[in-house]
Amino acid sequence: MSGKVFLVGSGPGDIGNLTMRAYQLLTQAEVLVYDALVDSQFLELVADTCLKLNVGKRGGQPSMKQEDIDRLLVEHCQQGKKVVRLKSGDPFIFGRTTSEIQTLKAANCDYEVVPGLSSALAAPLFAHIPLTDPVLSRGFTVITAHEPERLNWQVLAQIDTLVILMGGKHLPRIVEELRRQGKSEQTPIAIIRWAGHPEQEIWSSTLDEILSQVTPQRLSPCVIVIGEVVRLRSFL
Amino acid sequence: MSGKVFLVGSGPGDIGNLTMRAYQLLTQAEVLVYDALVDSQFLELVADTCLKLNVGKRGGQPSMKQEDIDRLLVEHCQQGKKVVRLKSGDPFIFGRTTSEIQTLKAANCDYEVVPGLSSALAAPLFAHIPLTDPVLSRGFTVITAHEPERLNWQVLAQIDTLVILMGGKHLPRIVEELRRQGKSEQTPIAIIRWAGHPEQEIWSSTLDEILSQVTPQRLSPCVIVIGEVVRLRSFL
Repeated sequence: MSGKVFLVGSGPGDIGNLTMRAYQLLTQAEVLVYDALVDSQFLELVADTCLKLNVGKRGGQPSMKQEDIDRLLVEHCQQGKKVVRLKSGDPFIFGRTTSEIQTLKAANCDYEVVPGLSSALAAPLFAHIPLTDPVLSRGFTVITAHEPERLNWQVLAQIDTLVILMGGKHLPRIVEELRRQGKSEQTPIAIIRWAGHPEQEIWSSTLDEILSQVTPQRLSPCVIVIGEVVRLRSFL
Repeated sequence: MSGKVFLVGSGPGDIGNLTMRAYQLLTQAEVLVYDALVDSQFLELVADTCLKLNVGKRGGQPSMKQEDIDRLLVEHCQQGKKVVRLKSGDPFIFGRTTSEIQTLKAANCDYEVVPGLSSALAAPLFAHIPLTDPVLSRGFTVITAHEPERLNWQVLAQIDTLVILMGGKHLPRIVEELRRQGKSEQTPIAIIRWAGHPEQEIWSSTLDEILSQVTPQRLSPCVIVIGEVVRLRSFL
């Protein structure tokens, strides 16, 4: 009997956002390795006999090192198990999945990547913000603001619509960089916290006023949308 | 009895990529209004009594005008029906959903937008291309090349990873514009046709060689990925 690891995106929020394929894999899993952002509802989908391992990372809390997660997946796969590695959102959007895959390949473990709804696209939708529009937004850019100093703000300021993940506590820096590059102070901005969850919160403002309305340290986990499409919220 | 219209994304390809919420809505639909790109499998999910209306648009073929689709949704909603407007991919990514919503709102029709996997993200995943990478891609930009003359290629050439929808027949223009803006001839490019479908095809090359390998007129429907992350395909 040979094992296999499925690197699966859970989407944001509840089970309704899970794909049919991901649901099927969860019900068949023998080992479930999951992140802290994954909703507890998902744990109820697996069989009673499924081993459930929380390797979650959350700001401030101790979490398992990536190399330990990688090793865990290999170990259970080599024991012939059907392993589901469940990640919030989509595995290939800022998901650190490449490290896990490379370790699995090096150990000759079979694996498959299964897409999930990314909060980068779903959070704006839940906030009634279409990321594209024939007039206001001919495209959008998704970035993480985890390390704002590594981003090219001169280019980003010229994009119709910016979607920023992991940007909560860096909000003052984001606003400052965009202003410095000449982005209008009146550019609309929306922040969606806990997208798709019952506790979802949305703030909608402009670049010059948003900082007076929110506490950056308390925004995580959030998706930030900057661009004229945010104005469509009031019409949709 | 009051009707409601659900603007639902089907994701790309087969039913496995449908969300649980979208699946549930399809099984309960009284009227299904769908596009040509939606897989025929989906039609089998609805009840026998459900009215199925194909309003699909495909290159060259006559298709229903957007205002006629808008009116159709309103009519069935006002008859108290539960209407599912099923769109390929995600409704808010180049989905013309805004027009439908505005018509529904103007007619006081109840509606809800339900996200789906966008081919912009799922097609690269199916081709083993992660759109983000800690070293190679700190972000990605999604555009449609439907009207290439309306895009700012000077800015787009500076983006780590470009994802281009509806770019098949415009491929020569895309390559030309990026070269003119100084993008390296060696930049990797991948084209994923019919992502998630059994007939999925993938071409992987560089900007200077891709045009000798494909026939632009025969690439539709496709997703184009341009950037160093394409090279990760061979490692994943």
